[in-house]
Amino acid sequence: MKKFVNGIDSMLQQSLAGFSRCHADIVRLDAGSRFICRSRKKAGKVALISGGGSGHEPLHAGFVGTGMLDAACPGQVFTSPTPDQMLAAAEAVDSGAGVLFIVKNYAGDVMNFSLAAEMYGGDNDTVITDDDVAIDKSSSAGRRGVAGTLVVEKVVGAAAERGDALPALKALAFRVNAMTRSLGVALTSCTVPAVGQPTFDIGDGEMEFGVGIHGEAGRRRIALQPADTIAELIVESILDDLGARAGDEALVLLNGFGGTPSMELYLMLDAASRQLERRGLRVSRSLVGSFVTSLDMAGCSITVTKLDPQIVALWDAPVHTAALRW
Amino acid sequence: MKKFVNGIDSMLQQSLAGFSRCHADIVRLDAGSRFICRSRKKAGKVALISGGGSGHEPLHAGFVGTGMLDAACPGQVFTSPTPDQMLAAAEAVDSGAGVLFIVKNYAGDVMNFSLAAEMYGGDNDTVITDDDVAIDKSSSAGRRGVAGTLVVEKVVGAAAERGDALPALKALAFRVNAMTRSLGVALTSCTVPAVGQPTFDIGDGEMEFGVGIHGEAGRRRIALQPADTIAELIVESILDDLGARAGDEALVLLNGFGGTPSMELYLMLDAASRQLERRGLRVSRSLVGSFVTSLDMAGCSITVTKLDPQIVALWDAPVHTAALRW
Repeated sequence: MKKFVNGIDSMLQQSLAGFSRCHADIVRLDAGSRFICRSRKKAGKVALISGGGSGHEPLHAGFVGTGMLDAACPGQVFTSPTPDQMLAAAEAVDSGAGVLFIVKNYAGDVMNFSLAAEMYGGDNDTVITDDDVAIDKSSSAGRRGVAGTLVVEKVVGAAAERGDALPALKALAFRVNAMTRSLGVALTSCTVPAVGQPTFDIGDGEMEFGVGIHGEAGRRRIALQPADTIAELIVESILDDLGARAGDEALVLLNGFGGTPSMELYLMLDAASRQLERRGLRVSRSLVGSFVTSLDMAGCSITVTKLDPQIVALWDAPVHTAALRW
Repeated sequence: MKKFVNGIDSMLQQSLAGFSRCHADIVRLDAGSRFICRSRKKAGKVALISGGGSGHEPLHAGFVGTGMLDAACPGQVFTSPTPDQMLAAAEAVDSGAGVLFIVKNYAGDVMNFSLAAEMYGGDNDTVITDDDVAIDKSSSAGRRGVAGTLVVEKVVGAAAERGDALPALKALAFRVNAMTRSLGVALTSCTVPAVGQPTFDIGDGEMEFGVGIHGEAGRRRIALQPADTIAELIVESILDDLGARAGDEALVLLNGFGGTPSMELYLMLDAASRQLERRGLRVSRSLVGSFVTSLDMAGCSITVTKLDPQIVALWDAPVHTAALRW
């Protein structure tokens, strides 16, 4: 395993120290390293809190700041944070208007956030993201929450910033999640530091179609395809499920998994946009970068959100975080 | 080779198409794909033009926009752009105040920019960046220009934006370059698409200390070290050469080479900052991300710029590009 680390046990703590040091104008790290929160609390707004296992950076800590999250709770790599982290974060950032927990649909995260929500004394509610079309809707665990979570956090973050109340924010989060679908492909495996070996084996001529952001198996293992074919396969899977039609306005998030350079991501954005346009969709917003990663995995995901004027306005609203700023 | 491409010949063009599509509010792609320039020309300012081989994205196209570059000329992967690209860019963006070419010190880039500078009819000058301390100062080709080029482009870009004249900008660029040093390490090789094989072999327990941004051999091949030791080795090499002393104020750019996830980069930022502080320097500005990359190479470089109030103010000035925004 080749990584920049001093030791497995210190890795998360030292990375958070670097993150909070670098972005001290935006965030602060809790003294117990239980959460990252905004350096300045904003009174009267609903607090948005997310979190999950580390290894997906900049998700979620990179999205803490004006116009997006109030706090993020990082677990160890690919491991859910604990309820006490979420409770401590809620107590720190709740300014009296309540807390909305935004949780990716993984068993550990859902269980721990649910415990925290029950234990927390203040007004709170939870929304679960589950945008990954690689998983069948009828599967018992439901669909995984992947890169579409960024879109939910951005849009709902803008609404929270302008002062929307908790029930309205929950309804909005639910609606944005319902308008959003993602699917990812991996060309190589990630390597979890504590394991020291690639999570899965994959041949030189293969790709994992429908991979999860922890290197979970996807829909199928197929031969590596040209970029245009990959984009077509993904866009078809997404649009079939989303029920998007010619004339719809769409946002595309072309997300890298960590090991794929931006030259390839922009090429994939072009390929995905052409596929969407061929089907009559109008791609009016796009975002390219490694935002919801899987450590060092080479690969990318495409997320499509159907837009309406309300969502567009909230997407366009100013955001000032470590990883997103406009 | 596992990459998101349709073909080697179309790769650059399709990536540029995606880039200009995604950032149409900031840049436009020349009809002949010879350069990326600002979507809105600003009258009366000196135009800053950079460029070089592709594969280092977001350098340089990602730095085109308000407060930084006016145009960037992308060559094929790891190949210099041609003089006609630079000439076309100069003709497009020169608003009468002249052109400053910012060129990384590689033989092909220096030769082609020098030809373009000679052929160009308008007022122009050139500055060459050479911040890589891995190369001995006395080597015949001189030092390579690496991630420190970002610092030069940001600081000089801010000065150009406020209206500084060409001679002052050239002097400033020279001064910032002289205050800046970088050194990089690679854990894996990059793979050039047209070659299809890793540029160099490296063992599981090895790292290349002093690697170049095209995978060029560094100072030496050494055993993989803990992050703190790597940071110490790099910071020592840089400070010895830079002549920085206790009490100096410094900017640190912790730059990823493309295949290293941000969790490790922030950990390295923390490690590098602690090393600098141990030596009495004050790290007042830091930037972390994969900005000057080498395709999919795992590795990172540390850049240190000695700061003074003028450079700090220009660094802090607003910038609005695809890759840097504040």
